Amino acid sequence: MVVANTGDDFEHLGLHISPDIDTLTYALAGVQNHETGWGRCDETWSFMATLGELGGETWFKLGDRDLALHVERTRRLRAGAKISTITSDISRSFGISSRIVPMTDDRVRTRVITADGTLDFQRYFVEARCLPKVTGFVFDGAARAQAHSEVIAMLQNPDLRAVIICPSNPYVSIDPMLALTDLRAALACCAAPVIVVSPIIGGRAIKGPTAKIMNELGHPVDVLTVAAHYHAVMDGFVIDTADAHMAAKLELPVVVRPILMRNISDREELANATLEFADRLAATQTLRRLQV
Amino acid sequence: MVVANTGDDFEHLGLHISPDIDTLTYALAGVQNHETGWGRCDETWSFMATLGELGGETWFKLGDRDLALHVERTRRLRAGAKISTITSDISRSFGISSRIVPMTDDRVRTRVITADGTLDFQRYFVEARCLPKVTGFVFDGAARAQAHSEVIAMLQNPDLRAVIICPSNPYVSIDPMLALTDLRAALACCAAPVIVVSPIIGGRAIKGPTAKIMNELGHPVDVLTVAAHYHAVMDGFVIDTADAHMAAKLELPVVVRPILMRNISDREELANATLEFADRLAATQTLRRLQV
Repeated sequence: MVVANTGDDFEHLGLHISPDIDTLTYALAGVQNHETGWGRCDETWSFMATLGELGGETWFKLGDRDLALHVERTRRLRAGAKISTITSDISRSFGISSRIVPMTDDRVRTRVITADGTLDFQRYFVEARCLPKVTGFVFDGAARAQAHSEVIAMLQNPDLRAVIICPSNPYVSIDPMLALTDLRAALACCAAPVIVVSPIIGGRAIKGPTAKIMNELGHPVDVLTVAAHYHAVMDGFVIDTADAHMAAKLELPVVVRPILMRNISDREELANATLEFADRLAATQTLRRLQV
Repeated sequence: MVVANTGDDFEHLGLHISPDIDTLTYALAGVQNHETGWGRCDETWSFMATLGELGGETWFKLGDRDLALHVERTRRLRAGAKISTITSDISRSFGISSRIVPMTDDRVRTRVITADGTLDFQRYFVEARCLPKVTGFVFDGAARAQAHSEVIAMLQNPDLRAVIICPSNPYVSIDPMLALTDLRAALACCAAPVIVVSPIIGGRAIKGPTAKIMNELGHPVDVLTVAAHYHAVMDGFVIDTADAHMAAKLELPVVVRPILMRNISDREELANATLEFADRLAATQTLRRLQV
């Protein structure tokens, strides 16, 4: 099961857009655009070009193929379907075997508090290209939102092998999920080990504004900051060999190995190593929550 | 001023689609698709192909460029703009100098009564390919709808040179306009001559289901049927040389000349001949409404 952040969902051009769900869907379907890092391969841009000619908003790039997904999802949402059902159906039509589950069917919206004011996430991330200085984040709706029942059931499942917090942006991609009260509680009670794979390698983020945000929030850009951020929920930490010298300062079980994923075999090796680490932690009963 | 039928507008995939306005817009902008007879030139079809892969509805073909217009219009309609304002803005962005005015800003929907039941117009026209046998038409909302104020003002303008009812389908493209009470009344009181250009040439329609519908309604497919249909509103009739033998049976002023338009010079010559005809009628004061 892959749990997707929906905090950066937004309404644009009358369409409901779910960037994180779509990136997961395209990646797992093998149709992601490797050049841009977002959107689809084999894409065409006639829609966007014409919208520009009509004087429409073009700051958020929507390819013609990508658009089909947004139009179909929006149509079904308006007809009363849940985002989780739609995600599941789209995933099936792409032949994806993993189950992608949005963190919640309720509305949660990430807003970024910056020196230029509070911005909707995509306005900050895409339109303003992450340039405004960040001072904090708000997850509108998170306090009232219910985590998806399948996510809670999975966290409560005694057969669950591990929870892996992927090397994603802790502030804007993972925190919206941890802001869901019931999800955070279920994670705290979860019997399986919770493993974080570091989004920071050698003092740098692989992509996106993670390092810039850490800086602006006044934190050192290193694995210690990541560990401190996830302290309350994590059992084990996978860091890169470039950060091996910091392993001693981390007061929790650590695996040190290459974590930069450039191809599918890098991905498989990291996934296997992370699962083996989780299995070792589970076997030795050193889970943080059992120590508390 | 070009007055556009909006009776065949419909909601599809969550988008507001106005086929007649769009065909006028694309034709006047010189970007119509001459091969298909609908849609745009230089079109791509990535959206439609992907929508099909997602299991979406593909019976109504929407090209990627065409889609930009529907998305932008729908966004603005939802934000409270009028279809006439949007049409005008889109027209301007295409560099069109004619003023395209939707017959009304209110909702009117053409429904086709057939042997297979009553169908929404596009379901009949596109999905069922005009195959069901027609027994009549309903223009939902027409009784309550107000014609666009600029259309009424133009019909009341003493300087108006002529009203030309183009060689369009009388039942589905022109009747929705005549079903608007105030538009029909303004047309009846209009000081300028009202000229009909025949949609029937030598017992056949140039395109579309006009002839098939006439047959199914039990009318001969000829210019006499067209004249009878428009009897109450027309002052003059332009028919093709192929129908010259019927001119004597038409009890109103007639111009006989080639009316099949294959290229821009055909169009210009027919337009000029029609305007000259209107001028002659105006000068000789033989307008139907002045005789009554």
